Amino acid sequence: MITAGIYGGSGYMGGEVIRILLDHPETEIVWITSRGDKPVEYFHRNLTGRGLVFVKPEQTSKCDVVFTALPSGHIMRMASSLLADGTKIIDLGADFRLKNRDDWERTYGMKHENWDLVAEAVYGITELHRDEIKKARIVANPGCYSSASILGLAPLVKNNIIDTEHIIIDGLSGTTGAGAEPDMPSHHPEIANNIVPYNVIDHRHTYEIEQELQNLSDSRAIVHFTSCYVPITRGILAICHCFPEKSISRNELIELFRQFYTGHPFINIVDMPKEKNVSWQYLPYPWVAAVSGSNYCHIGLDIDEKRNRIVVFSVLDSIGKGGAQVGVQNMNLLFNLPEETGLQRTGLHPY
Amino acid sequence: MITAGIYGGSGYMGGEVIRILLDHPETEIVWITSRGDKPVEYFHRNLTGRGLVFVKPEQTSKCDVVFTALPSGHIMRMASSLLADGTKIIDLGADFRLKNRDDWERTYGMKHENWDLVAEAVYGITELHRDEIKKARIVANPGCYSSASILGLAPLVKNNIIDTEHIIIDGLSGTTGAGAEPDMPSHHPEIANNIVPYNVIDHRHTYEIEQELQNLSDSRAIVHFTSCYVPITRGILAICHCFPEKSISRNELIELFRQFYTGHPFINIVDMPKEKNVSWQYLPYPWVAAVSGSNYCHIGLDIDEKRNRIVVFSVLDSIGKGGAQVGVQNMNLLFNLPEETGLQRTGLHPY
Amino acid sequence: MITAGIYGGSGYMGGEVIRILLDHPETEIVWITSRGDKPVEYFHRNLTGRGLVFVKPEQTSKCDVVFTALPSGHIMRMASSLLADGTKIIDLGADFRLKNRDDWERTYGMKHENWDLVAEAVYGITELHRDEIKKARIVANPGCYSSASILGLAPLVKNNIIDTEHIIIDGLSGTTGAGAEPDMPSHHPEIANNIVPYNVIDHRHTYEIEQELQNLSDSRAIVHFTSCYVPITRGILAICHCFPEKSISRNELIELFRQFYTGHPFINIVDMPKEKNVSWQYLPYPWVAAVSGSNYCHIGLDIDEKRNRIVVFSVLDSIGKGGAQVGVQNMNLLFNLPEETGLQRTGLHPY
Amino acid sequence: MITAGIYGGSGYMGGEVIRILLDHPETEIVWITSRGDKPVEYFHRNLTGRGLVFVKPEQTSKCDVVFTALPSGHIMRMASSLLADGTKIIDLGADFRLKNRDDWERTYGMKHENWDLVAEAVYGITELHRDEIKKARIVANPGCYSSASILGLAPLVKNNIIDTEHIIIDGLSGTTGAGAEPDMPSHHPEIANNIVPYNVIDHRHTYEIEQELQNLSDSRAIVHFTSCYVPITRGILAICHCFPEKSISRNELIELFRQFYTGHPFINIVDMPKEKNVSWQYLPYPWVAAVSGSNYCHIGLDIDEKRNRIVVFSVLDSIGKGGAQVGVQNMNLLFNLPEETGLQRTGLHPY
Repeated sequence: MITAGIYGGSGYMGGEVIRILLDHPETEIVWITSRGDKPVEYFHRNLTGRGLVFVKPEQTSKCDVVFTALPSGHIMRMASSLLADGTKIIDLGADFRLKNRDDWERTYGMKHENWDLVAEAVYGITELHRDEIKKARIVANPGCYSSASILGLAPLVKNNIIDTEHIIIDGLSGTTGAGAEPDMPSHHPEIANNIVPYNVIDHRHTYEIEQELQNLSDSRAIVHFTSCYVPITRGILAICHCFPEKSISRNELIELFRQFYTGHPFINIVDMPKEKNVSWQYLPYPWVAAVSGSNYCHIGLDIDEKRNRIVVFSVLDSIGKGGAQVGVQNMNLLFNLPEETGLQRTGLHPY
Repeated sequence: MITAGIYGGSGYMGGEVIRILLDHPETEIVWITSRGDKPVEYFHRNLTGRGLVFVKPEQTSKCDVVFTALPSGHIMRMASSLLADGTKIIDLGADFRLKNRDDWERTYGMKHENWDLVAEAVYGITELHRDEIKKARIVANPGCYSSASILGLAPLVKNNIIDTEHIIIDGLSGTTGAGAEPDMPSHHPEIANNIVPYNVIDHRHTYEIEQELQNLSDSRAIVHFTSCYVPITRGILAICHCFPEKSISRNELIELFRQFYTGHPFINIVDMPKEKNVSWQYLPYPWVAAVSGSNYCHIGLDIDEKRNRIVVFSVLDSIGKGGAQVGVQNMNLLFNLPEETGLQRTGLHPY
Repeated sequence: MITAGIYGGSGYMGGEVIRILLDHPETEIVWITSRGDKPVEYFHRNLTGRGLVFVKPEQTSKCDVVFTALPSGHIMRMASSLLADGTKIIDLGADFRLKNRDDWERTYGMKHENWDLVAEAVYGITELHRDEIKKARIVANPGCYSSASILGLAPLVKNNIIDTEHIIIDGLSGTTGAGAEPDMPSHHPEIANNIVPYNVIDHRHTYEIEQELQNLSDSRAIVHFTSCYVPITRGILAICHCFPEKSISRNELIELFRQFYTGHPFINIVDMPKEKNVSWQYLPYPWVAAVSGSNYCHIGLDIDEKRNRIVVFSVLDSIGKGGAQVGVQNMNLLFNLPEETGLQRTGLHPY
Repeated sequence: MITAGIYGGSGYMGGEVIRILLDHPETEIVWITSRGDKPVEYFHRNLTGRGLVFVKPEQTSKCDVVFTALPSGHIMRMASSLLADGTKIIDLGADFRLKNRDDWERTYGMKHENWDLVAEAVYGITELHRDEIKKARIVANPGCYSSASILGLAPLVKNNIIDTEHIIIDGLSGTTGAGAEPDMPSHHPEIANNIVPYNVIDHRHTYEIEQELQNLSDSRAIVHFTSCYVPITRGILAICHCFPEKSISRNELIELFRQFYTGHPFINIVDMPKEKNVSWQYLPYPWVAAVSGSNYCHIGLDIDEKRNRIVVFSVLDSIGKGGAQVGVQNMNLLFNLPEETGLQRTGLHPY
C-alpha cells in the first residue's frame, strides 16, 4: 500500500482527495491536516461515519506521497524537506506551475523561495506529460481552467491549425471553484440566478495556458481568458474560440482530436450526429453535468466555415479532472500503477 | 460473473442501474432494452464512450438476474416466464410492492394479472428484510419516498415509542423523481425557483409505508404523506413528525437508532453536537446533498419535549439508495455476495 | 408626500423597503442608514444608478415614518424617542411581536427594555388587524414564516374546523431568509443541491403563530413548526397539516377560505380543477414562484377524507408579503392611503 | 387609453406583455389569444385572480396596437391587414428584423411573403432608433441576444475603437429563452447543474447583430456568436470580446459609454472601483440578477492593455429589456408617451 498524507483537508480540494483515496485500492491515508478544531464531518458531511480525524500540521509523519491543498507559498517552503525524506509531492496549488519566475512572482504577489525546484516539477496535465510524470518527484497539478483549456486546444495547436496569437477563452465555473469559505459572490441569494464575471483580464491561469500551448507549438501563444461563476457547483466549461489558418472540416477536426487522445482513457471526444429541427440539435456538444464527480474530460467542437472560426468546448469537474482526481491519476503514474486505478467512476446522470 | 439484463434503459432509474453495474466487479451487463432508436448517449451522456447499445425487448437473452425499470403492469406479465428460466427479478417498479390487492388495484388503476407472485415477492428494504431477500426470487424494490420514510420511522415503531395513528410525513424530492420525460412541473423555468406540491393526499407510497410500519408494530399505522418537488435533482428528504407516547430524550433516541441499524453499512445516524449561536447549530441534522450519488441513507432527529413531538429527517438519493443502488444491494444478497460489493461510493462534496 | 426613513439599509429586508418606496407615489425616502463605508450599490446592485447614499444612524432626521430592519433589541430602545417626535414605526424585526414577556425574553435571549410599548404595538398581519393598524403608532411586522402560516390557518381556526392542539407546519424557505451575511448553510456549493433543516423545534416564529391562532379561536393552540432552507431565493411555502373535527369537503373549505379573505386584495385562493392523469394534476396547489417579488399570498388546500387530514399550502415572498411589502401595506393604512398604493406588482413568470 | 391586443398569450413572451400592460397606466388589454382550451392561470400562475381569459385568434377585435408573440411566419401574413385598420404592430418575433432577404429566408427556412413591409419596419433597439420608432407603424423588436450584444458594442463601433471584423460574443441565456414548451435541454434534471451549448455557429441573432453594427460603422462587421443555456431563468449575459485599434484606457472607455447612453433611462454603465484582494474585486462588472424582471440593461467592461483586448459585459432580462418590456418602451414612443411609462420597475434583489 502507498501511504499518503493530505495537507489541507478542510477545503473542497482536500475533501475530494480524501473521498478518492478512501476508495483507492492501493493507497492508505495516514493523516489529514487541518488547523482548526472542527471535525471532518463539519466540512465534509459526505464523510460522516468514516471514522476520519484531522491532525495538526505538526503531527504529520513520513509517508510515500503527500497531496498539498494549501494557499500559495506554503508548499514551496516545505518541499525540499519532504523530498529529502523520499516523499513524492502532488501539489494541488500553484507554487510550481509557472516556469517564468517574473510571471509567477507578479501573478502570485510574493517572492518564490524555492525556485530551483520549479525546473524539476512536472506540469501535471497527464495527457501531455505522462512519461515525465512517471519519473517525477514533484507534480505541479494544473489549475482547473487551465486543464480544460489546454486539453481543448492542444490538438489544434500541436497540429498548427490555428492562429495561436488570437485565442479567446470564456471559462465558466461552478462555485466550488470559489472555495469553501463563504463569500458574497458565492452566497446563494446572490449567485443562484446570476452569472458573476471576475478576473476578466490577466487571470492567473492565462499564464499556464500560454506556457503549455507555447510548448506544443514553438510559436507565441496569446490567450484572452475571462472567467465567470455560474450557478452550478463542481463543473467547468471552457469555450475556446480560435481562427483556423488552413481549411479543415468539422469531421476532420473531430478525427484529429480522436487521434490525439487515443490511448488516454479519461478523454472523450463528443461527436453526436448534428441534425436540424429536432432536440437532437443540442447534442453535438459536451455537457458539463455528464462529467461531474468523475475524472473524465469531454471535448467537442464546431467550425463556422463562413466566418472562419473554430469553437471548442471542453468540460471537466473542477476538483475532479481539474484537481484532486487528476492528482490521483498522476500519483498512479508516480507509483507505476495503471493510470485508471481507483478512478473508474462514471459521471452521474442526472447530476 | 453474474449475467444481468436491464429492462428499460432509457429512463433515469435504468441509467443508474447501468452506471452501477458497469463498475460492479462481479456482474456483466448482457443487454439493455429501449424501444426507440436513439442511442444510449442521447439519454445518458455520462455513458459517452462506453460502447453501450440498446436492444429491443424482443432481442433479450436468458440471464441470471434482470432489473426492471418499466411502467406499472409490464413486469407482472413477464415475471412467471423469467422465473421459469431461473432468472431472478429485481423489480424497480411497483408491481409487487403491496400485499393488499384492493389497495394495489385501486392505487395503480388496473387489474393485477399475477397476484400469486405477490405473496412470494420480498419488499426490498434491505435493512428490514435481509434474510428473506437472500432466499427470494423476486425483490419488490421499494419506492423512493417509502425507503426514506420507513428507514426513518422503523426504530420508533418497532420500539413502540410513538402513536402510529398520527404520523405526518412531508416528502421533498428532487426532480429526478419526476422522470426523464420533459413536463411542465419539471421544466426549468417553472421549477428552478419553485416548490411544487403534488399528490398531496393518498400518495401511492403511503400504502407501502403503512404496510411496512404495520408489520413492525402489529398495530394500525396511519400515515399522512404529502410530496413536493424542490429544485434539486436526485435527493429526497423525508421529514417525519410523530408524537411520542413515552418520555424519551434526544440522546436516548439517537442511541436507539444507532442500535437498530448496527451492522447495516449504508445507514448513518447523524449526531453532531447541537450548540447555539454558531453556524454549527445547522449541523445536527442530515443534509441530502451528502448522500447524493451514493447508496447511503443518513438519519437524524430531534424532540420537542415542551410540545411533545419527535421529528426525524431521513435523506437518500432517489435513484441510489431509493432505487437502483439498493436494487444492486439486494442483488448482492440474492447471489451471496458481500452486501457492499460495487456500492462503496462515498457521496460527493460539494454536490 | 410621506417622509420615510429606513434604519438598516444594507440587508435584504432594508433593500426591499428601498426598492418598494422608490416607486411608491406618495412616499419620499429621506434617509437610509448603514454603519459601514460601502456604497448602496455594493449591497444592492439593482439600485445602480439611482443616486442613493447611506447615512450613519447618527445623521438621521425627523420624518413621518421609519422602517426598522435591525437586529433584535435595537428598536425597543429607540422607539419611545421616535414616537415622541410623532414618527410612526414599522418594525420589521421582532421587538414588539410577542405579548408574553417570558416567551419573548427566553426566545430572544435578552431583557425587554420597553415592555410598555408592546401592549400598544399592533401585530402587522393586515388581513387580521386592519382596523387596529389604521390607528396604530407602532406596527410589529410579523415574521415571514408566521405570515404564511397564520394566513393559511386563520380561516380554519376562526371557524372551529380543526383540532388546534395538533397543528404541524413544515416551513420551507429560500435562502434570502438567512440574510445577506455569507454563511456556510447559504454558501452556494453547500445549498445549491441541498435542503438544510434548522431550528426544527421551538422555532421563534412558533410563538407568534400560536399567539395569533389563539386570538382567533379562544382555545389553546399548539403548533409543531419545523423550518428548512431549500435552494430557492425569496419564497416561502408553509405546509400546514391539521386534523378536522367536523366533516367538510374540499369545495366547502375553498369556499370558506374565499369568504374569509373577501375584500383583501393581496390574498388569492388557488382553486384549479383537480383532474387525474394529466399534468394538470399538479395545478390545484399554489406555486411559490408565482408570488415572488410581489405582495401576494396564494393559498390552496386539500383534504384526505379517508385518513381525516387537511393540508393547507400558503406561499409568499419572505421579504415581500412576508416582510417589507406588507410593511408598506401597513404604512398605507397608517396614513389613510388605499391599501394597494405602490404595491401593485404582479409576481414574475417565469421567476 | 391605448387599446392593446396580444397575439400568443400562452408563451413566456406573451405572458410578460400581459404582466407589464396590466400595470401600465395608459393601456387597456382588450384581448389575448391562445389556441388551446387551458386557462390563463394554467400558463401564468402569477396572473391568478386577475380575471383574464384567452380568446381564439378568430375572436379578436380592432385595437390601437397589437403585440405579436407568434412563431416565425405568422405575423408577416397578418401585418398588412392590421396596418390597413390603423393598428400599430410591435412584433416580438423575427419576421421583420433582417433587411437582407436571402439571409432571412435561409435563416428562417421559409419564403418571406410580405417583403415590402420589411423596409418600413423599424428595428426596435430604442436607444439607437428612437426617432424612427416614434414615426413607425411596425416595430421589429430585436432578439434577446441581439439586444444585449448590440447595446454592449454600439459605443465601440460607433466611435471606431475596435476591429469590427473580429468580434467574439458568448451569449449566456437563462432557460426562459428556450420557451415555455418542456424539452430535454430545459428539463430540470438535465440543466440544473449544467451548461448547454447550442446553435454555436451561425446563430440567427448573428445576422441582426452584424446588420446593426454595420449601420453604426459603415464598415463590415463579422460577429462570432455562440450561445449556451445556463441554469438561471430570465437573464442574459453577452460577453463581447474585441480588439482595440487605438490606445484607450478603461476610464476613457467607461466615459465614452456614459456619454453614448446619456439620456437613455434604461441603460446603466456599471463602474464600481476595482480594488484587489477584497471581495470588491468582483464588483466592477454587471450582474445579470440585478436587472431581472426589469427593463434595465447594465453594461460594464475592462481592457487588457498587455494583450490588447476589450471585454464588454452586457446584461438584461431576456423577456424584459430583451423582449416584452422593450416592446412596451417602443409602444410608449409610438403613442407619444414618456418612454418610461409603466416600466419603472427596479430589478429585484435578491433575485
